[in-house]
Amino acid sequence: VSEKGEYPTLADISESEVLSRIFPRLPTSDFALLGPGDDCAVVSAPDKRFVMTTDMMVQGPDFRLEWSTPWQLGFKAAATNLADVASMGAVPTALVVSLAAPAATQVRWLEEFADGLHAGCNDLAPGCGVVGGDLSVSSVLTVSITATGDLQGREPILRSGARDGDVIAYAGDLGQAALGLHALFTGQRLAKPELLNAQLQPQPPVNLGTVAAEAGATAGLDVSDSLAMDLGRIAKASNVSCRLDERVIDDLAAHLALEYGVDASEARQAILFGGEDHGLLMTFRSLDDVPDGFVILGDVSEGPHGVFLGQASLTERGWNPYAGWDGTVS
Amino acid sequence: VSEKGEYPTLADISESEVLSRIFPRLPTSDFALLGPGDDCAVVSAPDKRFVMTTDMMVQGPDFRLEWSTPWQLGFKAAATNLADVASMGAVPTALVVSLAAPAATQVRWLEEFADGLHAGCNDLAPGCGVVGGDLSVSSVLTVSITATGDLQGREPILRSGARDGDVIAYAGDLGQAALGLHALFTGQRLAKPELLNAQLQPQPPVNLGTVAAEAGATAGLDVSDSLAMDLGRIAKASNVSCRLDERVIDDLAAHLALEYGVDASEARQAILFGGEDHGLLMTFRSLDDVPDGFVILGDVSEGPHGVFLGQASLTERGWNPYAGWDGTVS
Repeated sequence: VSEKGEYPTLADISESEVLSRIFPRLPTSDFALLGPGDDCAVVSAPDKRFVMTTDMMVQGPDFRLEWSTPWQLGFKAAATNLADVASMGAVPTALVVSLAAPAATQVRWLEEFADGLHAGCNDLAPGCGVVGGDLSVSSVLTVSITATGDLQGREPILRSGARDGDVIAYAGDLGQAALGLHALFTGQRLAKPELLNAQLQPQPPVNLGTVAAEAGATAGLDVSDSLAMDLGRIAKASNVSCRLDERVIDDLAAHLALEYGVDASEARQAILFGGEDHGLLMTFRSLDDVPDGFVILGDVSEGPHGVFLGQASLTERGWNPYAGWDGTVS
Repeated sequence: VSEKGEYPTLADISESEVLSRIFPRLPTSDFALLGPGDDCAVVSAPDKRFVMTTDMMVQGPDFRLEWSTPWQLGFKAAATNLADVASMGAVPTALVVSLAAPAATQVRWLEEFADGLHAGCNDLAPGCGVVGGDLSVSSVLTVSITATGDLQGREPILRSGARDGDVIAYAGDLGQAALGLHALFTGQRLAKPELLNAQLQPQPPVNLGTVAAEAGATAGLDVSDSLAMDLGRIAKASNVSCRLDERVIDDLAAHLALEYGVDASEARQAILFGGEDHGLLMTFRSLDDVPDGFVILGDVSEGPHGVFLGQASLTERGWNPYAGWDGTVS
């Protein structure tokens, strides 16, 4: 045990010492031609293009430290970005990770965060890793990740490609993350661990992004805000009408209700209007095109654009990061 | 004037409304095959590789709102990342920008920030622009940018390539940003505007990155921490001894002192140990290789690695974001 204690904080040791403890824990990228250590990394882009997305997670609105372990937070930060890459039909290639933390944060915390990032990449997108980053001090713990991906010569899956007659399909959890968040908010710590994990360390089917692309997915995105809201984005960008099959949604809700001991209407709300599952919502030209791992949810018809559950129009609803947030950091 | 007032805040209008006001102000990228609006952007990488860097700026340690206008902050956020791309010898191609701001922030503030980003890209790296981003709420204003660049078929300029006999050269401001910061800290609002601007909206010679690469630069980086510290990074990575010519440094200090009305020793300190000028520190095989726009600062000899001013060893000194920072956000 050193003079600075067994668990030094960011204030106790130099930035370079912190980085030397974190770097060996980070996942490496098979696409890194040059890794961390220079002003930039160099990443391979075999087909002369790359996809890029970025996401910032802020303590308070996006996560709470009494709910998430640092490992879970690292895992989720990787997962949400990897899902965005997958939804374009691309293979994730590299991440850069910026983290701003209070000076009193233990370096051990950062090590566990790095371990979670490592697990997230290894589990969801083996071959993808961290090629660079930045470390800052802030009273509000903030994580910002940018992820890149390789389209392998295919055209990207856009929101705008859905057409009359397409099939709507989905791969991944649906409703679990929202039920998990509800359980956390209402103090149901005895909720099934899978439910809490769906919120705290989501496991989107990143590998199915390229599968969908190869199967000819016509449009797609990952469901971060809610099925209704994100399907509305496809409907709007493609100028089509997207109809969810009411019986399918009811079946999914019944199954979710049974599995997690919630009532069916709550489960239905979570499926339609919950968010953060980060599964892949895609459209395909025909039922035959839909790959294994996807569930058929409905179909696409000519506009005007909108989202319907059976005959009923679903207002676009979802997560507004500003509305109703009181700014309290717990 | 709407019901919500002439200057709505982030809490007053929806995220999509905020984005619809900011997006038209952002610079577009000539390399964007697909811009904002899907889960990822698609960026061109003509030589099957891209360089990538990221930087996070936190209110308090990295900037203060009583010093920086939002326009300046946007400009600086672009400039610091563009300099990192340039120092690798690459052409900047795209930025993704994440911003977390208090809910009470006026949308007008974000618009001016976007205008500063636009000006930074246009002035320093025309053709580079914003292809995506994220907007969050946080009590601590935080900006995170990831920048990418194209090496145009050349090998990247690394820190590790300096060799015995190389010439050390520098392009850009040197010492001005540190003197500007000192003027701000000590309340010298009457300091020359160029000095304050060097700190608040640095203008690194981004265009000289590819010029240096074409001239055969053997090693390089941008000076973000200090000449002594960043030259130490080249020395360490290349395992060489880097000697700054004392007469050159004295001449530069005398010039800086005269121009900005500070004393010569203060100017010398700023040149050697000040940071944030973000100019390009490069080594070349010979004097003849050094392009216009670079000043010769010294030479490289065989290790052991270290940085010297004449015969005197310069301890690595620079900016530690944790040490001495009390966490107060003003």
